[in-house]
Amino acid sequence: MNNLKKILNNLVQLSAVEWNNFKEKIVTQEYKSNTTIIKEGNIANSIYFIEKGLLRTYYLQNGKEINTYFACDGQFITSYASFIIQTPALENLETIENSIVHTISFTTLTELYRIDSKFEKLGRMLAEKNYLCVIDRTRKMQTLTAKQKYLDFIETYHKKIVQSVPQHQIASYLGIAPETLSRIRKQISIS
Amino acid sequence: MNNLKKILNNLVQLSAVEWNNFKEKIVTQEYKSNTTIIKEGNIANSIYFIEKGLLRTYYLQNGKEINTYFACDGQFITSYASFIIQTPALENLETIENSIVHTISFTTLTELYRIDSKFEKLGRMLAEKNYLCVIDRTRKMQTLTAKQKYLDFIETYHKKIVQSVPQHQIASYLGIAPETLSRIRKQISIS
Repeated sequence: MNNLKKILNNLVQLSAVEWNNFKEKIVTQEYKSNTTIIKEGNIANSIYFIEKGLLRTYYLQNGKEINTYFACDGQFITSYASFIIQTPALENLETIENSIVHTISFTTLTELYRIDSKFEKLGRMLAEKNYLCVIDRTRKMQTLTAKQKYLDFIETYHKKIVQSVPQHQIASYLGIAPETLSRIRKQISIS
Repeated sequence: MNNLKKILNNLVQLSAVEWNNFKEKIVTQEYKSNTTIIKEGNIANSIYFIEKGLLRTYYLQNGKEINTYFACDGQFITSYASFIIQTPALENLETIENSIVHTISFTTLTELYRIDSKFEKLGRMLAEKNYLCVIDRTRKMQTLTAKQKYLDFIETYHKKIVQSVPQHQIASYLGIAPETLSRIRKQISIS
């Protein structure tokens, strides 16, 4: 759980007492690859800190998977809109690889918000980060060419995500056809 | 300033002392219609609570204005990504009508975060609301037909926004051609 401790300390500098109190409320879980953790239509009861692994969120559009987010070691993930307002999720959360996650429930986090302003701060920072992430993705979807999108993706995303997420999932995340992505990858490896 | 007091009380229940302390830090400003408050490339130093008025954020793409947000009486607006990380804005903030706004600077809000957890909570709630707003818009852009988008817009947005924002600005916000919007509006008024 050292990864989580380090990340929280970077964000909100918890005291030893605060960390121990928080640690007791976390449940660590292991999931095999391709396991659905949150299913579209259910409520996201928890947020997950990834100790080790690779996960994605996606929804179905006309039977086709549209990937909306990838996260790996040291990052948080959930079906975030569902989590913050406790309404049915519009996205599925699934493991891509075998994953170990630390699970923080909505009830726990809400209680922590109430008793310790550092967790309010953490909540604010997570919300702001998620806002920036979705606004950045939306803007890039609307303004970049397919090649620019992929070059940006490999530059700015975690190496593990770039290397281990299947190509067709990256293509749907970037809003480009799998054949286009394949062509771009060939161009890049040649040039 | 009663509107702002009411909204803050709904969100975070400020005491009289907290409200008075907060109120002293706010600057109220009046702007004529079509005034640029934040210019693309500059840093958004403040967030604005609209006492009365109508504002929008937009960016330019190939010389064309793409509207990204509208807000009116009782709502907050800024070039939010720029505001939270204090980097150059990718969007302009402009008044559509003559507007009276209460201006809360980044410095003030950051200081309030530090001294009073209720403002951390407010910051979290604003960030979560903005996240939900952008994710909802993105999802609808990707999944709804032009007619569905407009029907959703008139159902879910503030009446003042629906009635007073120029049609071509609504069209660019919904990602549909002005002619298409005009056709949809005729269909609706006939049916």
